[in-house]
Amino acid sequence: MTRNPTAAARRHRDGEIRRTVLPSGLRVITEAMPRAGSVALGFFVDAGSRHETARQHGASHFLEHVLFKGTPTRGAEQISAEIEGVGGEINAYTAKEHTCFHAKVLGADRELAVEVMIDMLANSLIRSEDLEAEREVILDEISMHADDPGESAHELVSAALFDRDPLGRPVIGSEESIIAMSRRQVINYWRKFYRPSSIVVSAAGRVDHDRLVAQLTSFATSSQVRPSATPDRRPTRPRAARPAVISRSRSFEQSSAVLGFGGVGRFDPRRPALNLLSVILGGGMSSRLFVEVRERRGLAYAIDAVQGAYSDAGMFTVEWASHAERAGDILAVVRDTIAAIVDSGVSAAELARAQGQVRGQTVLAYEGSTSRMSRNGAAELTGDARTVEDYLRSHDEVGLDDVTTVARELLAQPPVLGIVGPRTNRRRLDRIVQRWVS
Amino acid sequence: MTRNPTAAARRHRDGEIRRTVLPSGLRVITEAMPRAGSVALGFFVDAGSRHETARQHGASHFLEHVLFKGTPTRGAEQISAEIEGVGGEINAYTAKEHTCFHAKVLGADRELAVEVMIDMLANSLIRSEDLEAEREVILDEISMHADDPGESAHELVSAALFDRDPLGRPVIGSEESIIAMSRRQVINYWRKFYRPSSIVVSAAGRVDHDRLVAQLTSFATSSQVRPSATPDRRPTRPRAARPAVISRSRSFEQSSAVLGFGGVGRFDPRRPALNLLSVILGGGMSSRLFVEVRERRGLAYAIDAVQGAYSDAGMFTVEWASHAERAGDILAVVRDTIAAIVDSGVSAAELARAQGQVRGQTVLAYEGSTSRMSRNGAAELTGDARTVEDYLRSHDEVGLDDVTTVARELLAQPPVLGIVGPRTNRRRLDRIVQRWVS
Repeated sequence: MTRNPTAAARRHRDGEIRRTVLPSGLRVITEAMPRAGSVALGFFVDAGSRHETARQHGASHFLEHVLFKGTPTRGAEQISAEIEGVGGEINAYTAKEHTCFHAKVLGADRELAVEVMIDMLANSLIRSEDLEAEREVILDEISMHADDPGESAHELVSAALFDRDPLGRPVIGSEESIIAMSRRQVINYWRKFYRPSSIVVSAAGRVDHDRLVAQLTSFATSSQVRPSATPDRRPTRPRAARPAVISRSRSFEQSSAVLGFGGVGRFDPRRPALNLLSVILGGGMSSRLFVEVRERRGLAYAIDAVQGAYSDAGMFTVEWASHAERAGDILAVVRDTIAAIVDSGVSAAELARAQGQVRGQTVLAYEGSTSRMSRNGAAELTGDARTVEDYLRSHDEVGLDDVTTVARELLAQPPVLGIVGPRTNRRRLDRIVQRWVS
Repeated sequence: MTRNPTAAARRHRDGEIRRTVLPSGLRVITEAMPRAGSVALGFFVDAGSRHETARQHGASHFLEHVLFKGTPTRGAEQISAEIEGVGGEINAYTAKEHTCFHAKVLGADRELAVEVMIDMLANSLIRSEDLEAEREVILDEISMHADDPGESAHELVSAALFDRDPLGRPVIGSEESIIAMSRRQVINYWRKFYRPSSIVVSAAGRVDHDRLVAQLTSFATSSQVRPSATPDRRPTRPRAARPAVISRSRSFEQSSAVLGFGGVGRFDPRRPALNLLSVILGGGMSSRLFVEVRERRGLAYAIDAVQGAYSDAGMFTVEWASHAERAGDILAVVRDTIAAIVDSGVSAAELARAQGQVRGQTVLAYEGSTSRMSRNGAAELTGDARTVEDYLRSHDEVGLDDVTTVARELLAQPPVLGIVGPRTNRRRLDRIVQRWVS
């Protein structure tokens, strides 16, 4: 990624990234793919559930919803109708460390899409009646999450690993915090966090950097979103994991399990090795866990290992769903598979295959404009100056010892097991987790 | 789509489709996108749950699973390791009318991917122990489906609308049919349906038509898959819907509802009008139902209208999830919204916007190689000779009267409501459904 503070004037090639910082602090980052017919656009805001106080829990996500409800010149229907009427898509998501409003449209409609998104972020009315309708919708969404056993198990583990840190709370908020949230709180949150200096606009595909910058100049001087200093950011650290089994009994057919370990943050030098370890352990149908649990023993439909990284902390999980009575067998396979890597490492062929897998998947993913827009926006927001090539090189440089070292440092620690579904043989699960290091 | 029976020798441009029929009857269809770095490959087999007898129920899907378990030269792990090791993906799905084995790899790896897929389809061992392991996995998958309330509601409606027709049965089979399925049955099913004349190989992206054809010639003469006549195909018709509410009580937080009407088949001239009606009614955030149910009243997180077409029959559904006590209110909104269209039609602006939405979404979707591969393969398998331009033109030609006519013919009929979740006010739902036409 080029990091020159002002836009380069030279002609740009496919895949070249241009960056401009407006006087207000708003950052614009584009990657032109001149042969693309469409453009992917994202407004990344440095505001997520991690920035919330306990009373504000769920405010980032609540705000993301109400910003779709209308401005002085556009009702809610019109916001979506303008984009959908040209075959485009507009949507948003809220994460623990940021909120993203995104759209995909044909190249000819890019200025329209940017205009609609600026209008939403800068001029929304946030009327009381709209807030009340969305409060009901979010309470519905909380029920939807509760009906998703895999997500519920994930929340149990996250809460245990991050203890009282805001990273341990679900993005959506709790029933209590959403019921109690006032219009004033949502508006204050908006005013505090949606400032030009906290926003990155990322575009990839059929985009003209200079025209986008010109169009965004109006945004940086609009009324609701005033230039200002960077919002407060409280540095946080995940607490060490205590071994635990946390179960929630629900009358699902299957039992969903998430086994979690403390991981590493986005900038941690161990991250490439941990990522390759996740691929070798459970990153596809040729991974050790998939082969043993699914192919050889038919114990579950799938099993995955996932490395999740926040800016300064992370989480490493192994996840599956199965008939309840098999949870213990699967957990024992996971323990033995991890123990084998901790004791004997991985083979050179396995490591090379995992490196090839990361490289090929990255190249395939970046054929589309949406993945480039997302990567560039999130990297810019977190101040990550590394290029995609840097990312691949850091994986190619990992040696066999590095994998063994991260396995020893992280996966030999006692984990937290979250399990949601019918009652299981709890005693067996406890025994395996409590005696993880033996 | 060009329909010349032998491959054209001229130089091909981006987006040009070439087709070759091998002497065995195997069809090869490619769409070269020379600037793409990757290629999407699919083997489409004319075998789905619709082709099964009651005793064979689930055989297509069971077979799809066991074809990943190994050949004389490749174990299960090796099949996936060869593709994943170069960063590619390989997978498969089974539908009611076909089975598809698909892969996405970098252009340089395309011959490897084709070789692996040929080996699976032609030379699989289907050993008893592998079959037993997959039987357990499929029983797990049946439980997974049962834990998905939206999918369960869909199955209830499908079963009611198609009555005893195989189209009304879930693809995966039943617990009973999977437990009873013998190795002999699975192998016989394979021998009967996996014949060159019943298979279409579709590729899009970085592909060379002639080299692919040359490589596939070996497949057509391989041992297990012998040239033969087209398999039996029993023409079927959906039965007319009887008004009904079918509920399944489950202790989910939310209640998932699917309201279904008999629809139209892939070749029915009313299909474009019905498709536009689904867009206007519930095809996005600017649709009538989304605006009324979500934006104005906050009754549910989302509501969609979906037009599903098989070769000679179809189904039109409206789908949502909500708190149980709101199911009646939402159903009343759906009834009133449909009644308003049946009575007064739609506006010219609404129709134009829906046409723009279909056009833009189609253009956006076809930027990627996977969607082109899928479309070309499925169209070839069903003998659909229409091009993407034909598809768009058929939508542009729809007039206001056409939309009103399909609304009257299809959506004024009494529907079937499938509902899964906590107990609801069943009497109110019954009353609305029984008095649909009033």
